[in-house]
Formats: sequence, C-alpha cells, structure tokens
Amino acid sequence: MTYFDAASSAPPHPVAREAFLAAWEEGWADPARLHREGRRARLLLDAAREGTAELLDCRPDELAFTTSGTRALHTGIAGTLAARHRVGRRLLHSAVEHSAVLHAAESHRGAGGTAVEVPPDRAGRTAVADWSGALTPDTALAVLQSANHEVGTEQPVEEVAEVCGAAGVPLLVDAAQSVPWGEVPGRWSLLTASAHKWGGPGGVGLLVVRKGTRFAPPEPHDERESGRSPGFPSLPAVVAAAASLRAVRAEATAEAERLRALVRRIRTRVPEEVPDTWVVGHPELRLPNVVTFSCLYADGEALLDGLDREGFAVSSGSSCTSSTLTPSHVLRAMGVLSEGNVRVSLPRGTAESDVERFLAALPRVVGAVRDRLAGPVVPDGPGGTAEPDDTAEPDCPAGGSAAGATPAGVTEVEVDALGRRCPIPVIELAKVLPGVPVGAVVRVLADDSAARLDIPAWCEMRGQEYLGEEPLAGPGRGGSAYRVRRTG
Amino acid sequence: MTYFDAASSAPPHPVAREAFLAAWEEGWADPARLHREGRRARLLLDAAREGTAELLDCRPDELAFTTSGTRALHTGIAGTLAARHRVGRRLLHSAVEHSAVLHAAESHRGAGGTAVEVPPDRAGRTAVADWSGALTPDTALAVLQSANHEVGTEQPVEEVAEVCGAAGVPLLVDAAQSVPWGEVPGRWSLLTASAHKWGGPGGVGLLVVRKGTRFAPPEPHDERESGRSPGFPSLPAVVAAAASLRAVRAEATAEAERLRALVRRIRTRVPEEVPDTWVVGHPELRLPNVVTFSCLYADGEALLDGLDREGFAVSSGSSCTSSTLTPSHVLRAMGVLSEGNVRVSLPRGTAESDVERFLAALPRVVGAVRDRLAGPVVPDGPGGTAEPDDTAEPDCPAGGSAAGATPAGVTEVEVDALGRRCPIPVIELAKVLPGVPVGAVVRVLADDSAARLDIPAWCEMRGQEYLGEEPLAGPGRGGSAYRVRRTG
Repeated sequence: MTYFDAASSAPPHPVAREAFLAAWEEGWADPARLHREGRRARLLLDAAREGTAELLDCRPDELAFTTSGTRALHTGIAGTLAARHRVGRRLLHSAVEHSAVLHAAESHRGAGGTAVEVPPDRAGRTAVADWSGALTPDTALAVLQSANHEVGTEQPVEEVAEVCGAAGVPLLVDAAQSVPWGEVPGRWSLLTASAHKWGGPGGVGLLVVRKGTRFAPPEPHDERESGRSPGFPSLPAVVAAAASLRAVRAEATAEAERLRALVRRIRTRVPEEVPDTWVVGHPELRLPNVVTFSCLYADGEALLDGLDREGFAVSSGSSCTSSTLTPSHVLRAMGVLSEGNVRVSLPRGTAESDVERFLAALPRVVGAVRDRLAGPVVPDGPGGTAEPDDTAEPDCPAGGSAAGATPAGVTEVEVDALGRRCPIPVIELAKVLPGVPVGAVVRVLADDSAARLDIPAWCEMRGQEYLGEEPLAGPGRGGSAYRVRRTG
Repeated sequence: MTYFDAASSAPPHPVAREAFLAAWEEGWADPARLHREGRRARLLLDAAREGTAELLDCRPDELAFTTSGTRALHTGIAGTLAARHRVGRRLLHSAVEHSAVLHAAESHRGAGGTAVEVPPDRAGRTAVADWSGALTPDTALAVLQSANHEVGTEQPVEEVAEVCGAAGVPLLVDAAQSVPWGEVPGRWSLLTASAHKWGGPGGVGLLVVRKGTRFAPPEPHDERESGRSPGFPSLPAVVAAAASLRAVRAEATAEAERLRALVRRIRTRVPEEVPDTWVVGHPELRLPNVVTFSCLYADGEALLDGLDREGFAVSSGSSCTSSTLTPSHVLRAMGVLSEGNVRVSLPRGTAESDVERFLAALPRVVGAVRDRLAGPVVPDGPGGTAEPDDTAEPDCPAGGSAAGATPAGVTEVEVDALGRRCPIPVIELAKVLPGVPVGAVVRVLADDSAARLDIPAWCEMRGQEYLGEEPLAGPGRGGSAYRVRRTG
C-alpha cells in the first residue's frame, strides 16, 4: 500500500513509538500527585512542554497540550471570544479554514455572535487587503490557517498578523499543516496544531496562547493545562508528540525540498497525461507535500476506489466522498471544479518510484471511471449520446435526458439531470453543448449541490459562457436550472 | 516503590501495552477515510467499541469514546441538560461526586441553572429517600457515582436509578471507580468511566447514552463519536483501553476478594497500631481496594512525604495537599476529620507483604510527623505546653498562643491560631482543653478552612461539645472563632 494521505494523518515517526514506550513505563501516574510516581510523570510532562515550546518559539507556560487539533481550535476560539466579548462578538475567519473552525463559528452564531468569512482567490489564498478591510472595531478574534489542508496553498500569516496587531485584534493561526515544516512566522496571538499530522500519535493537540492575549478558559473549570484542556492527560502520547516533532523538524528542510520536487512533478505531469484535469491551489506558495487536482467527467469516490485497488491511498473533496453529499467547502470557496477531486499528500520518506507508479496508474484509473460513466471524452458522435451505465450508479432513479444534435435555429435546449449525482450533470452538459448552435443556450436542471460549483467551473475551463442559476419553482421541486451559452 | 494510589491512576495492565503496540502499526490512519488504511483503522475502532459495549452491557451505538473521564462527565452532563432544558434547569448530584461533576454544576449555575446537592451520611453514602425527596418535576438530570473515589463507599445506584426512572429523570452514573470490578447494575440512563483507572492508557474515557435518553451533543458540531467527542481519536489508546478492560474484568472477581481481605486488614490494624486515627467510609458497602483514614495531630502533606520516603505512594484529601488549601469536598460533606488524611488504594496484584510493610511503616511515619508538630500525644504536662516547632512550618507567620493550665473558675479561654495551617488549630485545642475546668469553653481563633471541618470532627471523636463557629469581625480580620465546651 502506498499511502498518499499524510494531510489526513501521517504514518507515525519511529521516534514517536520509542518515546511512547519509554513514557509508558514512567508516565502513567497522575502528574498532579505529590508522590514519586506523580513527580516522575510531572517531569516528563514538563520536559515535553519545554521541548515543544522551543520548537514553536513560545514560552512553556503559553503552551497547553489538548486532546486534538480540533479541541485546540474549539478551545482557542471559544476562550478568546469569551474573554473579549465586551469588545465585540464578531469572529473573522477565512472561508477555507478547517471544518473545526467553521463549526466553532456556527456555534458562535448559534449563541448570538457574528461570524464573517474572508474569501480566498481561485488559488485558495486570502488577500491581506481583505483582512484589513474586514477588521472592524468590534472584531473579537481573527482565525487564519498557515496553509490549506486540502489544496496546500499557504496563507499570508505574517502580514495578516501585522494588520491584526495594528487593529488590536488577536490572530489565531491554525498551523496544523505547516508546524511539521517549521516555525510559524509573525506576531500571532494564538496557535494550534495536531500531533498526528506530523507523525506523532493521535490524541494530542497544541494550543499556544501568547502572554498578553486575553483568554477565558471555557467552562467547566479544570486545574490541568491552565484550564485549557480538562481531564487526565495521555502522558506517553504527549511525550511521543514532543519527541517526534523534534525528529521531524530536524529532517524538515531537506525533506521539504525533496517532496517539493515530487509535488512539482505531479503538478506538471497529471494535466499532461490525464486529459481534462485541473490542478488547483497556488503554484508556488504552497506546502511541500500536498497537491490537488480535479478530473472532469469522473466522480471522486470512484477515483478513490480505483486508486485504492491499485494500492494508493488518497483523499478527495468531491461531494460523493463526504457524508453530507456536498463538495468540500474549500473547493467551493475557491470556485474550482469539485468533481473527480483527488488530494495527494506525500508522507515523509515518499520514494520517487512511488510517485512514478502513481503517475503511471492514474490515467488508467481515471480512464476506467470515465468509461463507466460514459462521459464525453469517449463520445460515439458529436455531443456524446451514449447513455450512462446505470449499473455504475445504482442509487440513481431518473436517467438524464441528453438530447442529440440540435437543429440550427433552436436557441435553448433543456437537459434534465434532476436526481443525478455529480459528475452526471456536467457530463450531460458536455455531451449536449457541442450539438447546439454557437450562441444557443443549454439549461441544465440539477439538484445535486455540486452542480452549483462544477457547472460554472466547467464553463470557465472550456471557455463557455455561464449565464447563472435559476431556482426551479413549483410544488415539490428542488434543484435549479443552470444556463450556459455556447460561445465556440 | 510500592504504589498504593490506584484510585488516582492504575499502573497499566500488560495487555494494554500489547494492544497499544499492535494498534500502533494498524491504527494511525483516519477511520473516517475510505481507503484501505482508513478502513483498517475503522475496523479496530468498531471492534473496540463492540467489545467495550459488551462489558458495559450497552449497545455499541450507545457508547462514545471520549478523551477522558472528566470529558465524559462534562459532555454527558451538558448534553443532557441542553436536551432537557424545557423540562427544567435543575441538576441534582451527590455532594461527594468527582470534582469534574462539581465543576460542571458550577458552570451550569453560572449559566443560570440550578444545581442541588444530595448530602451523604457520615460514611459517605447517600440515602435513596433523599434522592426521592429531591426529584422535583423540573429536575433535568441526576448524577451519582457508583462508588466514591476518596473513601471507597458504594452508592445505592440501582435504587436511585429506580426512583429517577419513576420520576422520569435520567440518571448519569459516574462509574470511574467501579467499572474495573464489574457491570453497573440498574436502569441508569448515562454512564461514564475512565480507562486509566482500570489499567488502560490515559486519554480515553467512556460515555454511554442509553437509547431513549434525550441528548444534545454540545457545540461545536463534529462528526466523530456521534458528536460526543470531537477531534481525531487516539485509536491505539482506545484499542488498549478495550483490551485491558476485558483482561481486568476476567480477573476481577478473584482479585476483588483478595484485595478486600487486605483492605479489611488495613481498616482493622491502622486504628489499633496508630493512636488517634479514624478510618472513614462505609465498613461494608465499599470498593474492594480503597481504604481511607485520618490521623489527628498530623498533616497530610507531611504524611505523604514521610510515606513516600519509606517507598509508599498514597494520596490525601487534607487541605495542605491541595492547590486550593481547602480540604477535600468529600470529607467535608461527610463531616469527618480531614487532617492527616491518607487514602490507600491498592492496585491489582498488590502483595500481602507490601501491605504488611506499609502497616509496619505507618506508626513510625505518623509518629515522626506528630513529633515534629509537637501535638498532644507527646505532652510534657497536662494540656501539653510544648511550643510547635516552627521550622516544620516555615510559611507560618504568627505563632499559636497556647495557654498553660488554667485556674479553676475561668469559664472561657482563647487560643489564637490565626495564620496557622491545619493541623495546628486542632493541636492547639487539644493541648489547651485538658487544662480548663470541665464546663469551661475554649475559643479557637483560626482562618485555615480545614478548621471548620476538623474542630467539630475532633470534638465528636473526643466526646467534647462543639458549640459552633462565630465569624471574626473587624477591619482586615478573616477567620472564625470555634467554641468548644469541655465535657469531660
């Protein structure tokens, strides 16, 4: 198995296992106790805190070990909002943050607060000017990731920290993806991270709250970790997290350079070797080990499954791979194609040969998925009239009604893809459009939420004119009509 | 080192280590992912859930793995209170619950709710009738531990679950101390536990919410563990927790019987061999491995330190061992002596010879502490006029003004122990009282909060009459006068 899903969870670093086992023998007692076993546990905890603080360039008493990166985010956000509620109840965050931030924002809104998103550009990067403009006097907290977990784009954290500082607003940096690669620059106020993203164990997050940042530990009270992470700690896991971060950082510069070259190779070769793919994310300002692309006329779940059968573990932001059946909020915010989305995130130590094997397998896997869906890449005539293979999509009740070639003089053609999941609406559009006269309009009826993102993205990729979306009216009708004018 | 602090954290069971290491290799990926590594992790998680649910006699989908027992309590309480807020905002709990429950209650009060304590008897046990009487129609939740963590007393959980059920109020049982020894009987609605209490790893708690119990997962939303424990799990720790609970349960009946005999031996021999000690907790209805006693005229921290030097790790509920300088709320609620408090909690596998060595060392350690404090057990005359050794208590600014023998006809004598920490106020009282005529009153001035508990408890042990407490008036004065009449 070749594991290319390090951004979800990295394979554990060997040092983590060693450190864990050593601490297993010495670190099971309660570090709050006064007896020898307790003091021994306390020493381990203190050493782990000091070592990790050094790597994060903070003071040991600014660092709390939480039980996950998600908890670090929830606590960091709630604690700052509570402490600064007299300033205001406005939370500012980028639209491409980790879902834990979005959920915290949702919860804040539910409690009567306001949460405002800073949109990214099409590469997933937010603009410093947008942050400046959004920093109102009642902003209690700003949250920005150091780099995006789905597309790898780095954010201008240092500059945003400057403008936040000038406005007197604390900035929380979610550094989950970048902490393995180095210190997070800039004068941020809070920082979070997650050990299993760097090869440490699960169950350990980091929350740094800089001295001078107003912070009210969330209720209920607890004496451990300055009230920032209640409950008995997993001390061996904390020790393993600290030791593995040190080990990973020692190798970071060389390893980042090596992986960056492999990522560049994937970014270049995928569009060359797989037709109708779109590499997303910033070309330069990016994590060294993450690359993401979307394949037209393919669905993400089938791609994941096909790659898995070939021995590659990857991840996807396509709606068909999520439990909510909506595409990744990151791809949505960027306005890029979500269908057939694949994220490749290389773990430490990935061999060049693994990447080559992946590049060899990918065209075959994508081709097979497209064949099954009978997309327009293998048309049997203009517009592609081949019916989709229903056995490949057994949940799908209604067939799409794709028209054949349309006589000249017709100005609008309707394609009914209601009840069809991604990528069928786009496939139907791509089949029909070449058959209508230039200047004519195709109306695609669809109720899969990915269509809202993917039809405009397809138009942009294909140089066709997207006219907009009209909600379908009438009792019991969901979905929308998406109108596209053939321009060439 | 002989470790007698299993109720704080039990030494890890060998099976936990084995299971952890096996899962370390297979269980580091995200169990929510669709690829092979993710599915492998998912299988481990599912198996751990099924195995643990069987041992708790619940359904797998009723069980969530949390990151600690404290988190399980916080979430269980908050989630039930939120779901039942239309019924009422009254939380009922015993006065001797774990501090995590008290903190959750405090937080509930802070948010405008009501929290009511059910008091225990002097043995630490709550009465079913008191629960019946307290179950008002607006009670949203009742919380009761299966057995007390400080004194070992079992609670009438099964009967309280019956009366709660009849009143339509869910009962949350904190089973942290008893889950290693067997299933928790009765028709409770929620149950919590903590793996490091049974020899599993830190970082794993259990929260069971029975089907039919209204429950609103606390904000922010998260998809893992039915929204009851956000964040990436420590899967190897969960697997180790499940495996070790099974192993511990397999040995539980025989081991409980063996430890129960050792505890009985300690309960009998300590008062025989150490004068002026008081064994606390219920004599019969108790955990098999916990025994607690208090030693007059000794301070808990010094006892812990002395025992630690002799190679024994124990714990204490005395105020001088807590960061808040207040005695344990459990001892306070029971109304028993808190000074010189020692909790012995035997881990699985404790040898008879270890207990014998402890029983041999204890009189020596207690005697040495008492000698240093110059308590009345080694008086140099009636009333014991020896001055306390100030070098043993360097933080203490004001010396106690102990009177010598008091002439007949004097009806009230004042002892100034302001600024003196536990156990000095009781020592001063014990020195002075024999010197006053029968019927006369001693007023002890003290500002250490333990005095409020320990002076009445001393009176009861010594058969003297406790008249009550009067707050001291006047600018800048804290503390109280505690009045005691010599009856014999």
